[in-house]
Parts: sequence; structure tokens; C-alpha cells
Amino acid sequence: MKLLQDRIQKQGKILKGNVLKVDMFLNHQIDTKLLDEIGKEFYKLFKDKKPNKILTIESSGIAIAVACARYFDFIPVVFAKKFTATNLSKDVYSSLEHSYTKNDDYNIQVSKEYLNENDNVLIIDDFLANGEAMSSLIDICKQANSQIAGCGVVICKTYQNGENRIKDLGYDVKSLTRIRKIDEKGNIEFD
Amino acid sequence: MKLLQDRIQKQGKILKGNVLKVDMFLNHQIDTKLLDEIGKEFYKLFKDKKPNKILTIESSGIAIAVACARYFDFIPVVFAKKFTATNLSKDVYSSLEHSYTKNDDYNIQVSKEYLNENDNVLIIDDFLANGEAMSSLIDICKQANSQIAGCGVVICKTYQNGENRIKDLGYDVKSLTRIRKIDEKGNIEFD
Repeated sequence: MKLLQDRIQKQGKILKGNVLKVDMFLNHQIDTKLLDEIGKEFYKLFKDKKPNKILTIESSGIAIAVACARYFDFIPVVFAKKFTATNLSKDVYSSLEHSYTKNDDYNIQVSKEYLNENDNVLIIDDFLANGEAMSSLIDICKQANSQIAGCGVVICKTYQNGENRIKDLGYDVKSLTRIRKIDEKGNIEFD
Repeated sequence: MKLLQDRIQKQGKILKGNVLKVDMFLNHQIDTKLLDEIGKEFYKLFKDKKPNKILTIESSGIAIAVACARYFDFIPVVFAKKFTATNLSKDVYSSLEHSYTKNDDYNIQVSKEYLNENDNVLIIDDFLANGEAMSSLIDICKQANSQIAGCGVVICKTYQNGENRIKDLGYDVKSLTRIRKIDEKGNIEFD
């Protein structure tokens, strides 16, 4: 997606440890026009799979999933919770995820009420790096006996092993941008 | 907002401690069609104030803010962070918030890059109860010397003191539904 690639090139920042920061337009401040284009692009990529629900994970996935859902005629979005609230039901699917950016483990949870064997789920997330979050979301769909329509990712770091890990599990992963190399001088190379 | 009131009446659940749970359509699973109507309604209420930016707080505010932004011709959304990530800049506005539903204190943060004295900010959140989150968001706008166009809330619990607290500070608070009473038998009374 050229528009997104240009934006990453222009506004993405590379922090220590080769963390790519896109919080100017996606993860802290959100360019809602670009977000709408992202939603439209996911629709083009996955419309033939006819998902009836979108699954993502708080917080950064929510805006993307919602922008995407309107193109699929307003299908529901479910977002997995990372942080236990007193108002979350005890009856949940859960899966352990390690976050490298936050250097912490999360027991991500989805209430059993909102995912079941009749669902054909499009999983959406902002980044695919090591594949930790995506694997946990797939695990949750499997626990719910839901079908997985596909996995849509805004930014895939192909120099990490997440993309292969998810493909090896047999799932259809599609990314709007694929980055093959970044360095601390600020250079970003796209696939 | 009749549509929302009906939905709360039908699908809202009341937990111990009079916590109203709306995660069937707003806070865990999201009815994206209803969300779009919520965005449209906020536009009607605040269009004369001409905000150029929407400020909210992760996670539940994000979907609402994004749905609202498209009606304001795709103005940017900024969401305050509750959980420190290694990729958040050190140069932030911060304000302490106590969450009653999570029974925890958060130092909510907004990067100084994304809010300044040229901004006229519409603050959006899902609930207004004690006004803790809203007060922190206002505090952050004040630190940034931003103007506050108004405060939009999906569900206001008028039996708690948040609404008066924000109005007493001189801000324009508008809520899509106002609940004056709930009880553990599941009764919900609207204003």
C-alpha cells in the first residue's frame, strides 16, 4: 500500500532495539483518513473470504478493526483484552502472549459469549513481528472452534519470524506493507 | 439517543457494585453500525464548536473517537495511554487517574508532539461516572494550552458526581444517554 509506505518512510521513527514507532499516524495519534484507506484495503484483500466478525487486540488494533468493519457492511468487532477488568466475565478463552515492546507477558482474554463455532473470523492487527499476538488470537479462535477467514496486518516486519510462523500454521496472512530491513540510522527498506 | 437507550435496556448487565456492563455492543464486542450512529450523534452535538482534534483514552474510547472523527471530515484522534510502552516518548503530558472498574491508579500520558495551543479539542469517552478519566483528559489539555471544544460521553451516570464535577469546571458536557438509577435486580432508569 503505497500511501502507507510513504507515510512510514516520512514519519516512522526507529528507536533503540530496532523498534519502529508509528505513533504519529497509527498508534497514539491516528490519521483517520489514512485509517479509512487501510480499512478499505483490507476489505479488498479479504472480501472473498466473507468474514462475519473481526477479532483484534487492545489497544492499537481497535481503530484499525473498526475502520475495516464498516467496509464489510458493519460486521461486529471483538477486541481481546490484555488487562483484566472487574467487569470482564469469568467465562473466557485465554492465551498467553509475550509483548516485546512492553517487555511483559499478558494473558489475553475473550469472553466466550462473543466467539463461537458459527464465526468466520478475520484477525486484524497493527504489527506482525515475532507473531506473538497473532498466535494468541489464532489460539483463541481455535478454542472457540471458529473458522479463520484470514489474518490482516498493517505492517509486517519480514526480517522477524512472525510471518513464516503464521503461514506455517496454514493461515492466510496478508500485510499492507512489508519491511525487510530497518536500522538505527533511520533507513527503512520495503519488500 | 433512543437507539442506544434501547440497547442498554436490552443488553446491558448490572454487576456487583452497580457496575453497568455494556461489553455486548460497546466495550468488548462492538456493534459497528451502532458505533457509527454514535459518531454521527456526537457530530450533531458538537459541530458548531469546530474541533480540529479528538482526544480520548485507551482502550474503550478509541473506537468511539474514530467513529466520531469521520463525521468531522476525518480530523485526527489522539488517545491517551494508560500503560507505559517502551516506544512512548519521554516527553509527555501526564495526569493521575483512578479507575474504579479496574481498582487501580494510572498515570495517563499524551506525547507533547500531538497536542498544543493551536488545538481545539473534543474530548470523547464511553462512560462518565466519577469523572476521573474526564478530569485527567481535561488536565492534559490544560497542560498543552489547548482549547476544549467540549466533552462528549456515551453513557453518563447522573447518580454519580462526575457530570457536575466537569460542569463546575466550566466545560460543556453532552451525553448520549443519562442514567439516573440502576440496581442489582437489573433495573435501569434513564433521565
